[in-house]
Amino acid sequence: MSVKLDGNILVTGTSRGIGLEFVKQLAEKTQQEAHIYASCRDPKGAKPLTDLVTQFPGKITVIKLDTSDEDSISAAFQMLNRQVGSAGLNLLINNAALNKPAAPGSMKDTSKKDMMEVYETNVAGPFILTKVFLPLLQRAAKTKDNGDEMSCRRSAIINISTLLSSMEKCSETFQAAQMYPYRTSKAALNMLTCCQAEDLKDHKILVTAIHPGWVRTDMGGDQAPLTTQDSVAGMLDVMSTLTGRHTGLLLDWEGNIIPW
Amino acid sequence: MSVKLDGNILVTGTSRGIGLEFVKQLAEKTQQEAHIYASCRDPKGAKPLTDLVTQFPGKITVIKLDTSDEDSISAAFQMLNRQVGSAGLNLLINNAALNKPAAPGSMKDTSKKDMMEVYETNVAGPFILTKVFLPLLQRAAKTKDNGDEMSCRRSAIINISTLLSSMEKCSETFQAAQMYPYRTSKAALNMLTCCQAEDLKDHKILVTAIHPGWVRTDMGGDQAPLTTQDSVAGMLDVMSTLTGRHTGLLLDWEGNIIPW
Repeated sequence: MSVKLDGNILVTGTSRGIGLEFVKQLAEKTQQEAHIYASCRDPKGAKPLTDLVTQFPGKITVIKLDTSDEDSISAAFQMLNRQVGSAGLNLLINNAALNKPAAPGSMKDTSKKDMMEVYETNVAGPFILTKVFLPLLQRAAKTKDNGDEMSCRRSAIINISTLLSSMEKCSETFQAAQMYPYRTSKAALNMLTCCQAEDLKDHKILVTAIHPGWVRTDMGGDQAPLTTQDSVAGMLDVMSTLTGRHTGLLLDWEGNIIPW
Repeated sequence: MSVKLDGNILVTGTSRGIGLEFVKQLAEKTQQEAHIYASCRDPKGAKPLTDLVTQFPGKITVIKLDTSDEDSISAAFQMLNRQVGSAGLNLLINNAALNKPAAPGSMKDTSKKDMMEVYETNVAGPFILTKVFLPLLQRAAKTKDNGDEMSCRRSAIINISTLLSSMEKCSETFQAAQMYPYRTSKAALNMLTCCQAEDLKDHKILVTAIHPGWVRTDMGGDQAPLTTQDSVAGMLDVMSTLTGRHTGLLLDWEGNIIPW
């Protein structure tokens, strides 16, 4: 089983959960030439990730990156810039995210600090990361010049969002998962997706937000119906098929459009 | 000319622009019993606002309030709590907002600091302000108990948003006003509106976001087609007619629904 993804791929937040599974399946399913850059805040504490590096020799490079720290982003850029060379970066998956306070995340239980920290990681992080890494994405888009076509093989940003970011669906989802800081941050991330899609379409860089489904992870909890494996397999299939028609949209892991 | 707004009304960010005009028109157009609490960061430097206090004796109370400072919010709550007594707070207009960097606010020109500061004022501020002032809004909703009916006369939160917060409209509006920090913050404010509307509907507190139009203010610039007077007159007319059907929506100053 393979996916139509190729080139240099950077995934953030890969020490566990969905990010870790992205690295595993990308290592398994991409062509020989594809290389996965897996970033996390503390590689030394990420045993399952370093195990993957051993399991897929030469396929994965682990990068120390705290997306809430601008110096850390700059250092990661310098490192990646050297490694990818003239090929650039083909796919950036902004997966690193924070959800606090603990569920249900009611108004009463939510502090200003929660609001600010969650926004910093979930929105300001992807904004700055994309801004800093943009030259590498532009390089890839030019290197794989195939006219107007946009794809995750050429040059793309995937922002991992959530159904909970949908204002249209808020009346259905609010009571089960109030999560003020998370919801507001992910609505902002959707807007970032729209803005980047408009901003970068002339550069032929595709930008799409994807909802992974309600997944059995530390964040999703035990009750979630979807395994991490099925969610990530679905998202990679969706990414394989994205074209310019999908830039600036929010899709779920099965490719369905979610209304804003 | 009168508006159907009454009771105790708090408007934030009233030193100039739309906030100042809200205070002026509310003072002119509301019934004798209505009282306007006009907050701003620096009342001493707000000459036009203090002039209004003189012009409408006994009608306006100026409150020193920095919505990005939790201590300042607590102090304002203590003061307002004493003043409004058992009547509570009928209408909270979250108008204070920040837009930086200067137009066009491109990705290149936007720093992480811009992203964080704009979010702090435009989203975390209204979140905490509403959380702290909620007992006063609940008191008003109970005092004016008229069954299931919701209105801005009973108890309501109006979050001043913008057309630029609409993801549906982003492809039409992006090139003229990129404004990454402002757009992402206002999309998050819309989500806050949806969450609060769901959260507070059992308390009969109405929550609606309103787009003032493109207004000739310091923020809107000289080219804007709408005067502050017409924008505010329109918004007050809209507020006068809001019912439970409008909670959790984004409307423009003429009452039209804007898609998310």
